[in-house]
Amino acid sequence: LQRRERKIAIFTDASNHPAAIARTVCANGAGADYVLWVCENLGSAEERLTYWAPGELHREDFAPLNLVVLLRDPSACGVASANAAALPLLGIPEAALAHRGLITKREIRLTALAYLELQPGNVLWDVGAGSGSMSLEAARLSPMLNVYAIDKAGEHLQENIANFRLRNVHLIVGEAPEALAALPAPDAVFVGGSGGRLLAILAYAVHRLKPGGRLVLSCITLETFSQAWTWLSEHGCQPEATSLQLAHSRPLSHLHCLEPEHPIFLVRVKKP
Amino acid sequence: LQRRERKIAIFTDASNHPAAIARTVCANGAGADYVLWVCENLGSAEERLTYWAPGELHREDFAPLNLVVLLRDPSACGVASANAAALPLLGIPEAALAHRGLITKREIRLTALAYLELQPGNVLWDVGAGSGSMSLEAARLSPMLNVYAIDKAGEHLQENIANFRLRNVHLIVGEAPEALAALPAPDAVFVGGSGGRLLAILAYAVHRLKPGGRLVLSCITLETFSQAWTWLSEHGCQPEATSLQLAHSRPLSHLHCLEPEHPIFLVRVKKP
Amino acid sequence: LQRRERKIAIFTDASNHPAAIARTVCANGAGADYVLWVCENLGSAEERLTYWAPGELHREDFAPLNLVVLLRDPSACGVASANAAALPLLGIPEAALAHRGLITKREIRLTALAYLELQPGNVLWDVGAGSGSMSLEAARLSPMLNVYAIDKAGEHLQENIANFRLRNVHLIVGEAPEALAALPAPDAVFVGGSGGRLLAILAYAVHRLKPGGRLVLSCITLETFSQAWTWLSEHGCQPEATSLQLAHSRPLSHLHCLEPEHPIFLVRVKKP
Amino acid sequence: LQRRERKIAIFTDASNHPAAIARTVCANGAGADYVLWVCENLGSAEERLTYWAPGELHREDFAPLNLVVLLRDPSACGVASANAAALPLLGIPEAALAHRGLITKREIRLTALAYLELQPGNVLWDVGAGSGSMSLEAARLSPMLNVYAIDKAGEHLQENIANFRLRNVHLIVGEAPEALAALPAPDAVFVGGSGGRLLAILAYAVHRLKPGGRLVLSCITLETFSQAWTWLSEHGCQPEATSLQLAHSRPLSHLHCLEPEHPIFLVRVKKP
Repeated sequence: LQRRERKIAIFTDASNHPAAIARTVCANGAGADYVLWVCENLGSAEERLTYWAPGELHREDFAPLNLVVLLRDPSACGVASANAAALPLLGIPEAALAHRGLITKREIRLTALAYLELQPGNVLWDVGAGSGSMSLEAARLSPMLNVYAIDKAGEHLQENIANFRLRNVHLIVGEAPEALAALPAPDAVFVGGSGGRLLAILAYAVHRLKPGGRLVLSCITLETFSQAWTWLSEHGCQPEATSLQLAHSRPLSHLHCLEPEHPIFLVRVKKP
Repeated sequence: LQRRERKIAIFTDASNHPAAIARTVCANGAGADYVLWVCENLGSAEERLTYWAPGELHREDFAPLNLVVLLRDPSACGVASANAAALPLLGIPEAALAHRGLITKREIRLTALAYLELQPGNVLWDVGAGSGSMSLEAARLSPMLNVYAIDKAGEHLQENIANFRLRNVHLIVGEAPEALAALPAPDAVFVGGSGGRLLAILAYAVHRLKPGGRLVLSCITLETFSQAWTWLSEHGCQPEATSLQLAHSRPLSHLHCLEPEHPIFLVRVKKP
Repeated sequence: LQRRERKIAIFTDASNHPAAIARTVCANGAGADYVLWVCENLGSAEERLTYWAPGELHREDFAPLNLVVLLRDPSACGVASANAAALPLLGIPEAALAHRGLITKREIRLTALAYLELQPGNVLWDVGAGSGSMSLEAARLSPMLNVYAIDKAGEHLQENIANFRLRNVHLIVGEAPEALAALPAPDAVFVGGSGGRLLAILAYAVHRLKPGGRLVLSCITLETFSQAWTWLSEHGCQPEATSLQLAHSRPLSHLHCLEPEHPIFLVRVKKP
Repeated sequence: LQRRERKIAIFTDASNHPAAIARTVCANGAGADYVLWVCENLGSAEERLTYWAPGELHREDFAPLNLVVLLRDPSACGVASANAAALPLLGIPEAALAHRGLITKREIRLTALAYLELQPGNVLWDVGAGSGSMSLEAARLSPMLNVYAIDKAGEHLQENIANFRLRNVHLIVGEAPEALAALPAPDAVFVGGSGGRLLAILAYAVHRLKPGGRLVLSCITLETFSQAWTWLSEHGCQPEATSLQLAHSRPLSHLHCLEPEHPIFLVRVKKP
């Protein structure tokens, strides 16, 4: 552990069982740096692989035949810091992100992610990344996604990427579309903000998109929607649109009303 | 490969590079049985880990310093058959599932998953699992989720689970709530269908839910919503509700209208 | 005019034409008390009847063969004070009403009115009338509607009814359902507020409703909707429901977003 | 009655009471041609004016001091044929109109009417009138509205106008905007259909609109909305938009789901 090995396999026994190993890792101050896999009954029908943040492994009831593997650099496995380990597998809560109030809500974010049809190995551009919620949510899906988060002001973005310890999110501070020129061609593009340069961004992104690539644009304003829909239609992109209207229960004296969110349009394009 | 080893590590060189190894795996008829990890520049700042379905690995531009690891039993890694490998990382398309027309749509499914706040190691009950879309979407998030898909009629469910080759989805054919009695206590419960026994299922699920556990109920009918909301309120569960109304663009002569989906209510409860 | 006759018919000529008569009425300080009907070409194919607030009649191009009829008590004709004359024929603006913030919005009000299927001669109960927006909107449709506006606190209601000078709105200050006992049986009932006594009000209103009568309940809270839907269903009333979700454009810097209103449920029942 | 007098005033007594007069009218086959006003206690505090279709007047409990006035040509009073007399005061049911499937629904129609802020004496253009639902709904609000229903194909329109016996709806068969040139300048314009000439119609209508005039455009397609919003914004019209999303309960086995309607955008402009 002193040498911060990348990968350590440990055969266990009655005293050096998984929880004991986990305690040792923590006692060495490496609890946040490793993920601990417990591989039980390897090769048998009862085989089971589970992984743990060392600080959270207290179970003593593993199958006696087990192997422990310690992996450094948890982000490569989609597991971030001990802090981030408390995050749900899907749907980063807004509270877990530093942001300035404007953030793509979980429901919209996940719907947009589905529309992006991400595959392992894909390059995703997140244009106007803001707090980075979309980049981070995507990056957590697979260490094999290469996510580029582009934003004029990268403050919160940088902080959030650092906090999530994800190695597959690349921060690009700059203005789109110019800042996109140096990036690898995308399989998927999400446009969450355009800083007043919507059509230039759409034109450039559609141009660079790989064949079969997907572009999703989130529209909160009527102008964004109207201009994008008209431009994409007139340029042969055959856009599709989805409108989402959500409302959440909110206490009203001892009863509950439905508090609506701003309706959102997701416009999407698939390059032939 | 003949012996179907579980795990094979291969040091590569200029001729035995990753794509060559992948071809060999496929030529041996084992393309669907292994996932191939390429570990480049291990230990350096340029380290990168990517994984591939052998049949899809054609790249020749990996870093020269690389190691290939072949893992049998892809489902343990969240990668299903070659077929399923074409699935997006998030949002199983309805077309990829055998079903009878009633299926929780992608957008609703992902929103419900976010509300379930799943953590690695969690037990999820998917009650009235139908085609299994929710179970499968959840199970793909992490091999460490234990998903129980409960349904009276398990046909399509069984077929879909088999097709996705996910080892962490357990099919329970039977009627809830009786069929739930033998299951481990859940961290999360999704109720997608109740077969006319809504209140009995809610009562039992809330009872069995672990402290801090989450229950999400999808309501397509006004009766389901009304009864659940009233019952949960009256039993101190402090339910929350979200209404979702989606509409998708659809061609109308040479223009497009918005075709609405049925509005859905997601009712949720968090056990203190 | 000094004697404030109720009805005055005047044969006109080139100098005593309608606009001249209108000016005389106004000069006598009676402009707000009369409605002036111009009956052109009576009995011919070009016959036309139009009515005017005297202060607004400046046209000089009426057919030479015309008759002017002055009617006092404008409210009997659905025309209120000079003030109210500026109101649109349909859709009382919220600004024209004294109210405490809670008011049934125009769009909802008119939809509910349509669902009430009011006929001339009908008795309408407006239960929980609040500012009276529904009562006044209904009463303006026809002097032949008899509208009963019931509310615990009648302040704003009284002021608004007085301002609109409508003779067919009757203010009932009291608590429903008790306050309803003395009223004539309704053809139509609108429940805009229930003061915590929803089910008692529904039960009484359905009981008193004439055969073929209509009841419409506006629900802003989930509890109101759930309880009403369940109760009405269980008591053989075969309720119908409509959900309405509106959003209005609102400036956002130099663009516009859609600002949503609270979703509303209108539950309705038709007595066989 | 044989001579079909336009207006007949009858002093009543114990045997020639209102219901008896009504029966006589009907017995003479004139029940559909007259409206019968009962004027009770004229000049006193108990004065009440009510009107009746003769075939529907059976009450015997009028005040003894009453006067009956028979008015021929009911449409001048906003009362149509005996058939139309069964219509509700507001919200013409779709079933009461001959149409080809495309019809502005009641809820949308009434909301649009409110946004048109119609005043007595106003000229309303109903462009792309279709079945005429909007023209007829408006015309019934007041005999003093002058409604022009413009449509390329006037079939159903003519039939419906004839059925409703409204004298203040003028059918213009022709294509907008050319067909609008001969019409008086409008106080209000409703555009329900544009036959592919949206921007030409908007430009012409905004040009002809009187100062203070209102234009409301109903958009079912994304293209109509996008183009109108962009054009009106760029031409200094400061448009406002409202989106309306309705859903109606529909039986689903023995329960009810919410069946959504197509979302509609109403775009509106007020000329300074």
